[in-house]
Amino acid sequence: MNGIVLQSGVDIATLAEGVNLLWVLTVTFLIFFMHAGFAMLEAGQVRSKNVANQLTKNMLTWSIGVIAFFLVGAGVSTVVGGLTSGGSYALSDIVATWSSDSGGWVSWLFGAVFAMTAATIVSGAVAGRAKLRAYVTYTILLAAVIYPVVVGFTWAGGILSVIGFHDFAGGVIVHGMGGVAGLTAAWIIGPRLDRYNEDGSVNVIPGHSLTFAVLGTLILAFGWYGFNVGTAASVFSSGEAAEGVLALGAFDYVGRVALTTTLGMAAGAIGAGGMAMLKTGKVDTLYVANGMLAGLVGITSITDDILWVGALAVGLIAGAQLPIVFEFVEKRLKIDDVCAVFPVHGSAGLLGALLYPFVAVPTWASGFDVAFFTDALVGQVALVVLITVWTVAATAAVFGLLRAMGEARVSPDHEREGLDVSEHGVDTYPEFGGRDTAADGGIIRTDGGRPNDGGIKLVMAYIRPDKLSDVKRGLAEIGAPSLTVTNVSGRGSQPAKKGQWRGEEYTVDLHQKVKIECVVADVPAEEVAQAIRDSGTTGEPGDGKVFILPVEEAHQIRTGKTGPEAV
Amino acid sequence: MNGIVLQSGVDIATLAEGVNLLWVLTVTFLIFFMHAGFAMLEAGQVRSKNVANQLTKNMLTWSIGVIAFFLVGAGVSTVVGGLTSGGSYALSDIVATWSSDSGGWVSWLFGAVFAMTAATIVSGAVAGRAKLRAYVTYTILLAAVIYPVVVGFTWAGGILSVIGFHDFAGGVIVHGMGGVAGLTAAWIIGPRLDRYNEDGSVNVIPGHSLTFAVLGTLILAFGWYGFNVGTAASVFSSGEAAEGVLALGAFDYVGRVALTTTLGMAAGAIGAGGMAMLKTGKVDTLYVANGMLAGLVGITSITDDILWVGALAVGLIAGAQLPIVFEFVEKRLKIDDVCAVFPVHGSAGLLGALLYPFVAVPTWASGFDVAFFTDALVGQVALVVLITVWTVAATAAVFGLLRAMGEARVSPDHEREGLDVSEHGVDTYPEFGGRDTAADGGIIRTDGGRPNDGGIKLVMAYIRPDKLSDVKRGLAEIGAPSLTVTNVSGRGSQPAKKGQWRGEEYTVDLHQKVKIECVVADVPAEEVAQAIRDSGTTGEPGDGKVFILPVEEAHQIRTGKTGPEAV
Amino acid sequence: MNGIVLQSGVDIATLAEGVNLLWVLTVTFLIFFMHAGFAMLEAGQVRSKNVANQLTKNMLTWSIGVIAFFLVGAGVSTVVGGLTSGGSYALSDIVATWSSDSGGWVSWLFGAVFAMTAATIVSGAVAGRAKLRAYVTYTILLAAVIYPVVVGFTWAGGILSVIGFHDFAGGVIVHGMGGVAGLTAAWIIGPRLDRYNEDGSVNVIPGHSLTFAVLGTLILAFGWYGFNVGTAASVFSSGEAAEGVLALGAFDYVGRVALTTTLGMAAGAIGAGGMAMLKTGKVDTLYVANGMLAGLVGITSITDDILWVGALAVGLIAGAQLPIVFEFVEKRLKIDDVCAVFPVHGSAGLLGALLYPFVAVPTWASGFDVAFFTDALVGQVALVVLITVWTVAATAAVFGLLRAMGEARVSPDHEREGLDVSEHGVDTYPEFGGRDTAADGGIIRTDGGRPNDGGIKLVMAYIRPDKLSDVKRGLAEIGAPSLTVTNVSGRGSQPAKKGQWRGEEYTVDLHQKVKIECVVADVPAEEVAQAIRDSGTTGEPGDGKVFILPVEEAHQIRTGKTGPEAV
Repeated sequence: MNGIVLQSGVDIATLAEGVNLLWVLTVTFLIFFMHAGFAMLEAGQVRSKNVANQLTKNMLTWSIGVIAFFLVGAGVSTVVGGLTSGGSYALSDIVATWSSDSGGWVSWLFGAVFAMTAATIVSGAVAGRAKLRAYVTYTILLAAVIYPVVVGFTWAGGILSVIGFHDFAGGVIVHGMGGVAGLTAAWIIGPRLDRYNEDGSVNVIPGHSLTFAVLGTLILAFGWYGFNVGTAASVFSSGEAAEGVLALGAFDYVGRVALTTTLGMAAGAIGAGGMAMLKTGKVDTLYVANGMLAGLVGITSITDDILWVGALAVGLIAGAQLPIVFEFVEKRLKIDDVCAVFPVHGSAGLLGALLYPFVAVPTWASGFDVAFFTDALVGQVALVVLITVWTVAATAAVFGLLRAMGEARVSPDHEREGLDVSEHGVDTYPEFGGRDTAADGGIIRTDGGRPNDGGIKLVMAYIRPDKLSDVKRGLAEIGAPSLTVTNVSGRGSQPAKKGQWRGEEYTVDLHQKVKIECVVADVPAEEVAQAIRDSGTTGEPGDGKVFILPVEEAHQIRTGKTGPEAV
Repeated sequence: MNGIVLQSGVDIATLAEGVNLLWVLTVTFLIFFMHAGFAMLEAGQVRSKNVANQLTKNMLTWSIGVIAFFLVGAGVSTVVGGLTSGGSYALSDIVATWSSDSGGWVSWLFGAVFAMTAATIVSGAVAGRAKLRAYVTYTILLAAVIYPVVVGFTWAGGILSVIGFHDFAGGVIVHGMGGVAGLTAAWIIGPRLDRYNEDGSVNVIPGHSLTFAVLGTLILAFGWYGFNVGTAASVFSSGEAAEGVLALGAFDYVGRVALTTTLGMAAGAIGAGGMAMLKTGKVDTLYVANGMLAGLVGITSITDDILWVGALAVGLIAGAQLPIVFEFVEKRLKIDDVCAVFPVHGSAGLLGALLYPFVAVPTWASGFDVAFFTDALVGQVALVVLITVWTVAATAAVFGLLRAMGEARVSPDHEREGLDVSEHGVDTYPEFGGRDTAADGGIIRTDGGRPNDGGIKLVMAYIRPDKLSDVKRGLAEIGAPSLTVTNVSGRGSQPAKKGQWRGEEYTVDLHQKVKIECVVADVPAEEVAQAIRDSGTTGEPGDGKVFILPVEEAHQIRTGKTGPEAV
Repeated sequence: MNGIVLQSGVDIATLAEGVNLLWVLTVTFLIFFMHAGFAMLEAGQVRSKNVANQLTKNMLTWSIGVIAFFLVGAGVSTVVGGLTSGGSYALSDIVATWSSDSGGWVSWLFGAVFAMTAATIVSGAVAGRAKLRAYVTYTILLAAVIYPVVVGFTWAGGILSVIGFHDFAGGVIVHGMGGVAGLTAAWIIGPRLDRYNEDGSVNVIPGHSLTFAVLGTLILAFGWYGFNVGTAASVFSSGEAAEGVLALGAFDYVGRVALTTTLGMAAGAIGAGGMAMLKTGKVDTLYVANGMLAGLVGITSITDDILWVGALAVGLIAGAQLPIVFEFVEKRLKIDDVCAVFPVHGSAGLLGALLYPFVAVPTWASGFDVAFFTDALVGQVALVVLITVWTVAATAAVFGLLRAMGEARVSPDHEREGLDVSEHGVDTYPEFGGRDTAADGGIIRTDGGRPNDGGIKLVMAYIRPDKLSDVKRGLAEIGAPSLTVTNVSGRGSQPAKKGQWRGEEYTVDLHQKVKIECVVADVPAEEVAQAIRDSGTTGEPGDGKVFILPVEEAHQIRTGKTGPEAV
């Protein structure tokens, strides 16, 4: 610090540029973090058999999409911007990003996190049945072409810029586009199995964790401040700087953006929660969460230029439309939008943009400004219509083609089994599923052939969880490999244990045990009991017990066989 | 950048103001993100039947509270500040925030995230039994009046400013206030059912997920850097700037704040973990987590002006008092502070503030400074006493009134069932509860009337999970709708499957099955078995089996009926 | 803002310093947040019985490690830096951090979050069997000596600085070091029980939650931008400032860092996912997640000075090596690296550094630069070799000593039971384990002595979950305390309830019930049934039923006793 002297005017400009840069990077990181939000929000809203699939899609959206956006997408925006505005363009601009410089790449990344937000929204709509390769194909096209065309129309100076529109941070360009694309994809791909009954009535398929859904919501809200306020505060407008005076670009409205974003989010939660309460008498947790996001989406396109009462109104409306639009999509359109991405991102985004003329600062600044109002209305309608038409057309084309090729969705068997297993070979929660996790390759499976003199018996044992593998081996060795396993808790002669919560002990008098049931006819029940005893003992109290119960009859479900043959 | 010339002095001031602004926004976002931390921390510490309620309360605290703080709260601070210091004030200042400007709204939001932190602390104390509407009512009053009065007394220049106090970032004003309010609310509202036995002994009611609790803790610690360091680094003090020289406001102590915040957090974890180990011989996970936060709370009011050895000492004490104060509150006061908000935010915050004179830089700067010590002690005691008295009085009044109206807590039935169902109609983890999720509206429920000639029988079947709905329908059609369902794992004639973890396959030789048990007397067991076979088959291996076992006697618990009548 | 005049050159320097400071703080917080990422990633990858242990280790790594790094570690770096470079050093520098100033402490904290990242990596490798005290001992030594020596060799100006090396943000110094330390520790401590069969074949032990693992991954990726871009953008290089001109230090490459970090991460996911798909035909979720991180690790040392095509290549290689190296470590070296920390942080970090000469900007800037290439290769090999040798030696020494003292790992019993119970006395998910959580200290346990005239009976009851404690008491009172408890769902005479998901109702016709099984011989079954009826009734529909079934034989597993004696 000592001895540093300001030499010339260029230094403060450099400093200003540095501050701009650091701010852009900071908010870019916040927006990137929204992927964690989407991942958790979507994971929470799907069945546990589809969670890993959803998580993988989210990671691949970013990983594959961002490369596509770098290699092609960013350039496509520029070209489309020039092409649709009578401006200059060159097809070689498509690869201009490759040879950019430091500042250019920071700008690219700032654009990329917006692009990937649009892309990731779609995965929530098609959850639980879209083929991974279909989704990835669409994501590449979205990142390389579909979204860049939308940006070309708008922020990159294309046709809608010529008409005039107001979409500050992507309420339509990013969220509206993503929501519409999700709805279209879900429509083409069809609903999940058993989502609708033959008479057209609806089955509700709940997700698996509200905790993850709410965590995702709050991460998204955190990142959204980057989205909106970040866009506001590029701090130093180069336009004014060109006149020789370094002016603070966003000073006039950054506070307004921070305020209206906050109020829109808050009112969205109240709108959705209130509407849900009107419908069912309860404050639905997921609607409150979805409503926060709908309020944010609704405000995003107009947050820099509306009154605070307008922010409350837009947020309330964006929230309140959520239950209504969701029901309309579900019951009228019969589209299975799993994570409600259309009501949250689509209709909320389009509606917010259309409300702009009604709540804009200029409309009310000094009495009602008719000229501004009319122009704004025209521009916003054009924005909404053009982006919706393009997005529906492009998305329907891609998924329509994939469907025609039989590549759009997984087979019914795979869907029933869950996409985690069929597409990824994994189980999201390996322990809770009650599966046996020890490798057990060496088991000899035999169908015993000796008659059990005593008829059919149920051998029921309570054993130590960690002896399960041994007992399975023991049973296999005597030719009785069929068994059923249940996680139970029990107490017998073992002493009670102490559990602890926040350092305080409590009695855990039930120990985790595994219950084994084997029904046998061919193998003598006593032999089975003996095998369990031999393989299940550690010699310590708590090894468990085996009981033999009589079974009067047995049926094999598939074959209809009865008696010992069925066992 | 080229050609930009520094024209006049105003530019660097503008730049400085811009930097200040961006920093305030950045830390504001970090503090906002603490809501995700509180949500996860509290969700992890409650029973799974109350998780959605806790999450909803967190979202509503922000959504409703921030609007109340905008409409009224911020203005109340200003008015109370003037009113209690002999300064100027006007009741019209209450709505001054409505017509603020960009900078004013950023400042408001920075204040709002502090206010909402205080508000959300309370929900952890009253978890599991407070009525949603009671909690929301209190939150509105806290955001509009109770907390703003505290700020009015202090940061807004009121009575405590006149006396002199040191609360740098809200160790007392935010956390102490929230912790005391939580304790008071939990006291008025009473403990959860079965928390205390009739003889006054305590039942431990553990939470449902340490993972979420620790995630929440680490999110909070992340946000806390915004809380403390953010408050430190407003970078350019306008006071000095007024003298014509732009001086760096926080340079002298921002590093100290970063350091002491870090050491206080670390020592808090060690203090609480160590004390817990002394008590039970184990390093309790939740105490370590709570201790990190208690260390942070303890340091928050004084982090800018203490020695680093003082930070270690305060952190250790704030952590070590945690188990002791928690036990005192639980066992002596018999207050059921579910998430330990008083020991973590209340006593740690008050204690940290009171320790200020002992560890302050001025006290030790050049020998022991008696005058400073005495003044500081008086100021800190006044701070703690006044805020505690006001918070207890206001909170007790609100919850006392709600209790008198019978609106403070849910009915015992609702509490037993869990607030998720009773207040929100939801199940946080729809799958883990083993509930059937397919809509099943069309089932005909009949009480069969034909005698089962063979006496009472247990029909026990292992079926495919996805055939459960069909089997339920099948059973209902033959008049045997009563059944019990268990998630089990089994292997029969189905081939073993391959599971995968990090791309490595392992044998999954146990398949997920559902076990059905029907005890029948009126309906012939063979008919039940047949119905299961008909409705449960897919024709593929793995369809399962049905067994019939003799039952000697049956009792209906409620009526005491026995025999076939009981079934 | 009004009237502020730029007085002298010092002000813009002050402002520049302030901006630098705020940026360093911002990225420091992001890097700190990576602890939440590690905590979730590791928690997801371990069995549920070891989750709390993993979480506690993460919190203690930070809490204890950061104090050790403050008290000793930072100073050790300085001393080692001077000592190994022929530079000046004084042992008193070890405590120099204690009496630093504001700027020094900010720098220290920036260094500390790197140090703690290296430290926390190790816990993932030794999960599930390392003793808490062994791990904590090693962490203290790592933070105080082992890692500081590595920094002394490199960033602090030591021997490797003299040779010349390129490790921009710690791809080797932080991640490589952590990964190698983890591998060494896992090697010394030995594999988890049952990880390898006697014939050397491998058992896969899956983690417990992919959701937490992916959440952790995305939090880490978020923080990583702070890691890499933060290191890039210290904005104003003091070096150039010394010449009198305030120059923007990182402008030339911050965009490159942002771009190559992004592309490396993306390519890493594709590389690992693609390689896993080649091996198993599936896109493994965990490999995609681990691959994102491996791509980031690979790029970290060289991100500032490589071509973007190089970033894609390095990311792809870092991802693709993951499945291969993991398998090599697991199947050839027989080292049980639970969270794959060596392939993710170790080999990816070392490989990335070694690839530097091949993808560096200077190599390709204007034709192939042989001199640069050779120098760079020598430097990078020296970097990798020296740090690997030191880390392996130091880690092996510490864990070798701990093992020799019998302090390295928990007993086999404790390992089987899980470290949550044995080391911390807690259960991570108290509810899912099916344990009884009500304190039940007063139960009288008796072994009944009266013969049950009817032989051995199974008393089976379906009761309300909230009556379990009462029923246990009731059974204990009649001398039949042994029982087994299962969570089931059932429907009997209770009316169906309504559940809700996103405000839509669905029929919940199965209610949560608890099934109790008691096998009795000494106590008459009718008496048991009566006790359940008396203690389990509320008088409302839904109280449940009790059934008595005949049991033909009973075996006690441990003793081999049969008949009534066994019960």
